[in-house]
Amino acid sequence: MQRYRLTLEYNGAPFVGWQRQENGLSIQEALETALARLGEDARVTGAGRTDRGVHALAQTAHVDLARNWQPFRLMEALNHHLRPAPIAVLEARRTGADFHARYSARRRYYLYRIIQRRAPLALEAGLAWHVRYPLDLDAMREGAAALIGHHDFTTFRSVQCQSASPIKTLDAIEIDQRGSEISICLNARSFLHNQVRSIVGTLERVGAGRWRAGRVAEVLAARDRTACGPVAPPEGLYLAGVDYPMDSGG
Amino acid sequence: MQRYRLTLEYNGAPFVGWQRQENGLSIQEALETALARLGEDARVTGAGRTDRGVHALAQTAHVDLARNWQPFRLMEALNHHLRPAPIAVLEARRTGADFHARYSARRRYYLYRIIQRRAPLALEAGLAWHVRYPLDLDAMREGAAALIGHHDFTTFRSVQCQSASPIKTLDAIEIDQRGSEISICLNARSFLHNQVRSIVGTLERVGAGRWRAGRVAEVLAARDRTACGPVAPPEGLYLAGVDYPMDSGG
Repeated sequence: MQRYRLTLEYNGAPFVGWQRQENGLSIQEALETALARLGEDARVTGAGRTDRGVHALAQTAHVDLARNWQPFRLMEALNHHLRPAPIAVLEARRTGADFHARYSARRRYYLYRIIQRRAPLALEAGLAWHVRYPLDLDAMREGAAALIGHHDFTTFRSVQCQSASPIKTLDAIEIDQRGSEISICLNARSFLHNQVRSIVGTLERVGAGRWRAGRVAEVLAARDRTACGPVAPPEGLYLAGVDYPMDSGG
Repeated sequence: MQRYRLTLEYNGAPFVGWQRQENGLSIQEALETALARLGEDARVTGAGRTDRGVHALAQTAHVDLARNWQPFRLMEALNHHLRPAPIAVLEARRTGADFHARYSARRRYYLYRIIQRRAPLALEAGLAWHVRYPLDLDAMREGAAALIGHHDFTTFRSVQCQSASPIKTLDAIEIDQRGSEISICLNARSFLHNQVRSIVGTLERVGAGRWRAGRVAEVLAARDRTACGPVAPPEGLYLAGVDYPMDSGG
């Protein structure tokens, strides 16, 4: 067996999410089906179990294969057999058995895209959250500041979250605007289920002027899921990258 | 009658092009059908007659309407009736009868997007030209330099081009790269039919190393359509903006 590390881009729209499920096609299943066409009966493990409809710019996965594939050939063969699913293997490389896409990950980066304008999205439909009223970015940044650091994020996690603890360290939330597009970049060692969309949905309420910025700190302190703002829709969310300790050396 | 000026975004993929045709739905027809639902029997004139599959970030059009519409209401009503076509009215405003979207235009801006990588495009499929081999941008810029200025562009226009003269002034071709994305920004007072895609397709041959950069000047001087490189595909092309003399004042 040889372990391979894959970097993946996908459009989440047609999938039930990363993880294999009974009720529809997942990205994991699409990859495993493509591997089966290569004669490999293998399970793929991803760094982040993205939800239904969530995209990836650079998800990382690992898989153990029976044959010793030349990595470039593996990438090409997988991309061939993945068609027409909107999943692309951007890179494949050999890695040691000590590399685990999920447990070795040191940092995860998420991007959330909002397009703020009246008109519908003709070109970016399905690729961003369309918000039709103005958002106050300074207020959103003020609200976001309360979330940075080591906190109990019970308010910002799905009731289905399977994480042992609601305590996480959120290292950054950067909010920028370019034309009508607002990008929210978050990073942390790991995230709770629905944490990014719960944070973005809450900050959107602040940006829309429906919530005071100070309410973000209050609902965080409440540790009460029902105090959270609405969960932002999946089409704006991208798993943008994953860092591993073994990458910094070389 | 009151003349309105519209700024339009569209995804060209499902359309036969800007102009009304017998063989399929055009952007013009989709707009005129939406206007008919508002009780307006009107013809829409665009600044650029984009081809089948070509996108727009900011096409400009004008239309004369019988009713005196509040511009914001007109925009909202058109966007409502355009659904689900991927056409968005970004702005509507009243304008004088001396404004003509096509004839008053002083400058047109086009963007051509190339994504250069091996893997297929999962997120940008249909929104850029996918080129699977490396491109030498310096060589492309050297080739492009030969096209700047006042020239007979016979080599770079479609045999169906209806322009009275093949002589045009191309003011700029800027080629930039950001990650795997190469953007080519062109502007001129006006363009010939297929001129941008003919130029991009030719520069791509230079970037791929199949043509010497000096060959671009040679084929331009030849004034021979058959000397042109292949025409680049429509999915990478965006009408990015149109300037009018009346805009500079206010």
